[in-house]
Amino acid sequence: MTEGKEFTERKVVYEEKMNKLYDKLQQMGSLVEESIARSIEALKTQNQELAQVVIDGDDLIDDLEHEIEEKCLEVIATQQPMAKDLRRVATLFKIINDLERMADYATSIAKITLRIADQPLIKPLIDIPRMTAISQKMVKQALDAYVREDVELAAAVGKDDDEVDKLFGQIFRELLTIMMENPKTITQATHLLFVGRWLERISDHATNIAEEVIFLVTGEKRNLND
Amino acid sequence: MTEGKEFTERKVVYEEKMNKLYDKLQQMGSLVEESIARSIEALKTQNQELAQVVIDGDDLIDDLEHEIEEKCLEVIATQQPMAKDLRRVATLFKIINDLERMADYATSIAKITLRIADQPLIKPLIDIPRMTAISQKMVKQALDAYVREDVELAAAVGKDDDEVDKLFGQIFRELLTIMMENPKTITQATHLLFVGRWLERISDHATNIAEEVIFLVTGEKRNLND
Repeated sequence: MTEGKEFTERKVVYEEKMNKLYDKLQQMGSLVEESIARSIEALKTQNQELAQVVIDGDDLIDDLEHEIEEKCLEVIATQQPMAKDLRRVATLFKIINDLERMADYATSIAKITLRIADQPLIKPLIDIPRMTAISQKMVKQALDAYVREDVELAAAVGKDDDEVDKLFGQIFRELLTIMMENPKTITQATHLLFVGRWLERISDHATNIAEEVIFLVTGEKRNLND
Repeated sequence: MTEGKEFTERKVVYEEKMNKLYDKLQQMGSLVEESIARSIEALKTQNQELAQVVIDGDDLIDDLEHEIEEKCLEVIATQQPMAKDLRRVATLFKIINDLERMADYATSIAKITLRIADQPLIKPLIDIPRMTAISQKMVKQALDAYVREDVELAAAVGKDDDEVDKLFGQIFRELLTIMMENPKTITQATHLLFVGRWLERISDHATNIAEEVIFLVTGEKRNLND
């Protein structure tokens, strides 16, 4: 076999393996999105069982992260990708770490739900579900941007992040007002403040992914988080 | 040159390059530790200038992360390390991401300092500096554990994490009490609550590093964070 032929075959195997990894990534992404959505649904409806499902599901996401990590290393060791191909694997390696962190935040939210489930909510949740919907969309778009190497889609994720930050600012001020008016609400309100912060962090992680995608495609370190 | 000889030489170059990377890692670790310490010092003494130093210093840490990442990919591409050697590079790749996140939290703390610097502190800060000292030690130990591949030292990091979690629980309860007694303290108290949370997250990242080290050395996924 000539060197050129060996290189071409290696590249074909590389592409096949990467496509399988993309499938796994989408699978992990769907689980994380579901976990975020469920954690907020559980909070909103004070559904302790659903919160527990989120908490129990975190192990599966950790396992998937681990599995994808191992497969990334396998691709590197056996296909020895160079330049852009190597960077593509390295980016995937980072992305799954962001996804895993998001799932951790969903778990933190579910734990808060368990803590405050025995008392009525101090206010109907409106902005928090709104933040959640945007965050979920950001996760999906960031992963699509990676797989399609779509810089414009990645940049759009950054715009949504601004919207999430604005909503969090609103939630923060509203909860402070509620606490000041009625000190009995303080404990629950601080828990809800943390929920808002965790959602904000989730959207930060989606933004990280988008920034990684832009760097992968253009070589430019752009800060979408300002 | 025989294949065996080529392999040996490549291994020598690999070790040299890794040692240089370890130096860079320690340099990044020192900057992050300093950033954490300064953010809390600025908060405690309400020193806005020092808080600004922390915020401005974050770019340098980001650049260093980026530089180390590039060097990791270079080692992989040029030395094609296999098995444990490849895993060592991959672990480094993850660790610097944890360090960068810690620095982000220090920056968040510094921003809180700027926000509340115009009003006296509602209480002298005692447990927060205590959490900080432990978190800083954890960062240092986690990095040492990586470089020396020391499983026992890594496990010790997990024990410190329990201590940090306990201190945060204490801070949480204390601040809630203060808020309930005097609603005027609510705004600052919620900010201090976030500071406590960020410190807790910093120590979680140090624990992540420790878990990575244990996995690198033993192949075992141990959860130190329970």
